Formats: sequence, structure tokens, C-alpha cells
Amino acid sequence: MSKTRTEINTLGEFGLIEHLNQNNTLFHEHSLTRKAIGDDAAVLQKTEQESWLVSTDLFIEGIHFDLAYAPLKNIGYKAVTINLSDIAAMNAIPSQITVSIAVSNRFSVEALEELYEGIKTACKQYQIDLIGGDTTASQAGLIISITAMGVANNDKISYRNGAKANDIICVSGDLGGAYMGLQVLIREKEVWLANPQMQPQLTDFQYIVGRQLKPEPRTDIIKELAKNNIVPTSMIDISDGLASEMMHICQQSNVGALIVGDRIPIHEKTYETALSMQINPLTAALNGGEDYELLFTIAQKDYAALENHPNITPIGYITTPEKGIYLQTPQDTTVPIQAQGWNHFQK
Amino acid sequence: MSKTRTEINTLGEFGLIEHLNQNNTLFHEHSLTRKAIGDDAAVLQKTEQESWLVSTDLFIEGIHFDLAYAPLKNIGYKAVTINLSDIAAMNAIPSQITVSIAVSNRFSVEALEELYEGIKTACKQYQIDLIGGDTTASQAGLIISITAMGVANNDKISYRNGAKANDIICVSGDLGGAYMGLQVLIREKEVWLANPQMQPQLTDFQYIVGRQLKPEPRTDIIKELAKNNIVPTSMIDISDGLASEMMHICQQSNVGALIVGDRIPIHEKTYETALSMQINPLTAALNGGEDYELLFTIAQKDYAALENHPNITPIGYITTPEKGIYLQTPQDTTVPIQAQGWNHFQK
Repeated sequence: MSKTRTEINTLGEFGLIEHLNQNNTLFHEHSLTRKAIGDDAAVLQKTEQESWLVSTDLFIEGIHFDLAYAPLKNIGYKAVTINLSDIAAMNAIPSQITVSIAVSNRFSVEALEELYEGIKTACKQYQIDLIGGDTTASQAGLIISITAMGVANNDKISYRNGAKANDIICVSGDLGGAYMGLQVLIREKEVWLANPQMQPQLTDFQYIVGRQLKPEPRTDIIKELAKNNIVPTSMIDISDGLASEMMHICQQSNVGALIVGDRIPIHEKTYETALSMQINPLTAALNGGEDYELLFTIAQKDYAALENHPNITPIGYITTPEKGIYLQTPQDTTVPIQAQGWNHFQK
Repeated sequence: MSKTRTEINTLGEFGLIEHLNQNNTLFHEHSLTRKAIGDDAAVLQKTEQESWLVSTDLFIEGIHFDLAYAPLKNIGYKAVTINLSDIAAMNAIPSQITVSIAVSNRFSVEALEELYEGIKTACKQYQIDLIGGDTTASQAGLIISITAMGVANNDKISYRNGAKANDIICVSGDLGGAYMGLQVLIREKEVWLANPQMQPQLTDFQYIVGRQLKPEPRTDIIKELAKNNIVPTSMIDISDGLASEMMHICQQSNVGALIVGDRIPIHEKTYETALSMQINPLTAALNGGEDYELLFTIAQKDYAALENHPNITPIGYITTPEKGIYLQTPQDTTVPIQAQGWNHFQK
């Protein structure tokens, strides 16, 4: 056994995943396994024409959520919807989940009922079958592990690696809200810790707090694209921030990108709150994460059909790889985009 | 919100799962979802004739394993094989897994490499594709969540609910070894804690310690059954002990059972170690758990083909439901079987 000790945070989350999964051997690559690690979901053979998509995420107390400001019902809801978002990010509609839960005995049956109310509300909202799972004790805190599944036609699946030069880069909804909502929740928690008599002041921040506590997978956008017979050339969901996700698409598609800062959709409330907290709204949108909107690229010929769509915004275009990944700032200079993303190992 | 506080351990693990999943609504029951919660794996439509099986289990430090006596490589291996066992328990061969890991920064990259060496060794051994997962920080300890998948012909799947009166009850391998191995490991850990100079004395207990630290899914038995054209009328894997699993089959099949104590296969080393530790070997076999052998029932007509199989033992027969679930003791009296199983919430 090696005596060397390398700290996990020297690799970062993506680096660690890549390191541990190197030389991954597949035994069913030309039969049952159509795509393994490296996209929002794995792709398994259903029929010749169709595939099952499978994606899994952990959602952990103290790392991904804080019970001081997130109600258990919201935690259950979000644990489901962020997993559904991974299936949507393949341009598909999710249909099943498994839910595994580990809890310490600090939690009562009633607390778990609240959590499950959120899980079941999300399942009902998105017509998801809860097909299995595991329930066990934990040493500390609440740990939720969800696997989401869905079916898609092979020729409708959007991967991260299909973007081509001159494709138009689009995002759904607006960005940065979930991050600013989190900042407000953290601020109010600190106020409350300093003075437990104070009630949290959240009324003015409903929109952004809702973006943080109750994200929705954009299956409506997937249906809209299907209705218009558009298959995005690439797609990913925005869990770690626009910059990080754009880099994933560019790396896997071997292309560059130019994003026009002025075009990035930012909600008025996100904008105002960011300014009031001395945060650059564009930074919140680029690096904030957790909006669970879709980032995708489409061929130019498909653009006309989406041009006036209220929930889809073109924010730039794909370039050739040597051009790199750039942001055109509101001051009309271009700066290279760097992914901050989230590194849960750096605390 | 209710003010009542009900402790989780008043329901127990199975009671809690049942409670939280009551009134589970399915939206794709007559299309994509063929079987949801309630068996070793969920069953999803592949084609008209074939299904995907999906099963998921948590494997948590301090609850399911102890790093004081389990090497990380073994933990990785076992985390995979106990999930593969759930697919085998549907009378099917597993082919894919996802692996999600949460670790505290107490773990180094080298430690995770050891863990993954075990995971990859199990994948290679059983020809399993590692198709996805998640890696994140944890607040405390190591948490592994694995989802296993496999494909089966619909008419070959064995559920828990198909046992019929007069079917013969069979088990693979031998029982109680994993439990006695655990007792030895716990004893040696205590000796070591009392005197860190002492080296653990495990040489004499290799077989049972191996049963605890390196369980194997009985895919060999599944292949053997297929070769003999036998589809068990019911099947389950023995993770919580023979008694508990027999009760699951009887409850879901609405039958009774008579198990002949003398016929339960117990390895010589298991037997000896149990006696030396003042444990009834039959109790270890009935309630020990973690052997990951298969418990299954077959029609009488199928018995001849398996009669002399070295790894399959008939241990009793299915009766009508009013007869209950009984053990015929070596003293030729019959006693009702009560499941101890494992309740991780009772510590």
C-alpha cells in the first residue's frame, strides 16, 4: 500500500471522479450499455430504437442542504427534482426513481413523513413512479440517494458532445436566482443565530428563495422542443453554474464558445439582491449554480422556431476549439470564462 | 405540523419502509413499470418479452461496516456484490451498476483508490459495467450508494410471491458463516483495543471471516437453474437471515412453511466457532444474515434435477397459510419461526 497521502481537495470533485473512473472497462458496451460515465445520465438498451436513461445523485445534510433554513418537505422535493433534471438534460422525460434514505435517530417518523410528502409531491407533479429504495440508520444527519430513470428515442437523445461551430447557445428560464436565494437564507440564518427572537425577513425574496428551495426540472422545455421537432445538438443541466456547464459541453464537443454577457437572462429580483449584497449579478449567473435550467445548443436552422419563446434565451454561439471559451462583457471586451463550479471538498 | 414525536425504532426497518411508501401511486404501471416496491428489485419494461431489473442499497460506515476490521478494498467489493445479489435474487444476471460515494476529508485519494480497486475487482469478476454515479463530501464517514441493474426474460423472473403449497424450499451454499465471522472480527477488535500490541488471530477463521468480508452473489446458481430449465416459484437473497427471508416469501406468497432444522447447511467452521462462543449454530444460521445465499422454492417436479447438487440444499417445504411458519428442531419438536433480522435503528 502506498504511504503517500494525497488530499481529496487537490483533485477537486470532477478531477476525483475522473481519477477514480479511469480505465473503466465495459463488458456490455456493444449490447446493453450504450453510454456509461461522462454525461448527465447513462444510456442503456431498451429496444433497437429506444433507450433507458439512468442518473444518480447524492443529497446530503450539511453539504447540499441545511435544515436550519430548508423545510424537510422542500428537501424531499428538491432531492427528487434535481435528479429528474439530469434525465431532462438528455432531452428526455423522466418516469421512475428509487429513493434511498439514511437517517440518524435524531429524526422522528413524523420528520420522515414530511420528507416523504415532498418526495411524493414531486413524483405527482412530474408523474414519476417511486419503484424502490433502501432505508437505514446513519451515524450523522440525513443522506438521500436518488436514482432517476426515463425512456427516450435514440435519435432524440442530446449528449454533451454534439455541439458544432456556429450552433446557437440557449438557456431556459433565468440564472443566478438560486445562488442569490441561498445568500439571503444564509444571511437570515446568521441574523437568527445572533438573535433567536428575530423572524426571518423572506417576504421580499420569495422568488429567489423559491429558486433555491424548490427547483423544477425543465421537462416543459423538453416537450416544447419535441413539439417543434428540435433535437438540441448538445445539452446539460445547470447545477454547477453556467460557466462550468459551458466548459463541459465545449470540452466534450471539442469546440469553443462565445457567450454574450448582456444576453444572459437574470431575474430582476436576482439582479437587485445581488447588487444590494455587493455581488456582481453576472457572476451569480455564471458561477452560482443550482438553477437546474437547461443549457443547450441548436443548429441555426432550428433557431427561428424558438426565437420568441418566453422561456428560452439565445446567449451566444459555438466557435471552433482554438477560439476558446469567452464571455463578451457588457463593456464589449471579451474575457476567458473560468469555471468556479462547486467543490464540496473545499470547505 | 404534528407535535407528536414517534421514534423510528418503534416501527423497525421494514415497518418504516412500509409506512413511508403506503399509498404509492404509479403513473406508468401498465407500460414502463412492471413491478415497483416490494421485491429484491423493481422490474421495468425492456421489450414485450424482457425486463430491466433495478435494485439499490446503501452501505454506510459505522452501520454496515467498521473500518477497524474491514479493509477498504473489501468494503468496495462487498458494496458491489451485495447489490448484485439483489439482481440474482430475481433469478437474473446483473450487468450494470452506478456507484455514488460520499466521504469526509479524513479519507485520502489513496484510500479511495483502495476502495475503487475493490469495486473494480467485483465488476471484473462479475462482468459488470460501471455506468455512472456521484462523488461528494460527507459530514462524517464513508457512505456508498449503489444501484444494480440486469436484464431478464419475463417468464424467468422469480418474485417473492409465487411459492405454492408443497413446493420444496432450497438454499444455496451454507448459512451463519458471515455472522460468526463478524463475531470473531468484533472479538479481535476488542482484544486489539485493550492491547494494541496484540495481532488479530484470524488464521483459524479464514472461511467465516471471508464470508463476512467478501460475500459473493450466487450468479453461479442462477446459471445452474437456467441450465436445468428450472424457474424457482419464489426467490429472495439472504441478507437479513433465513428466518426473516422465509417470512417475506410466506407473507407475500400467502403460504406457510416447515423448515427442518437438521437440513439447514452450516459449515463445520461456523458450527465450531458458534459452539466455542456459546452461540447456538442454528440461531446463527436462522438469524445471522449477510450470507447473501439464495433462498428459493421449486415445484416438486423440478426437484430431481437438483437433488445431488453440491451447492443447493432442500431444507423444507411450503405449507398452506393456516399452518404458519415452523421450524422442526433437531429434537423433533416444531417451534414457530420468528424473524430477528437486522434493525439498524435499534442500537
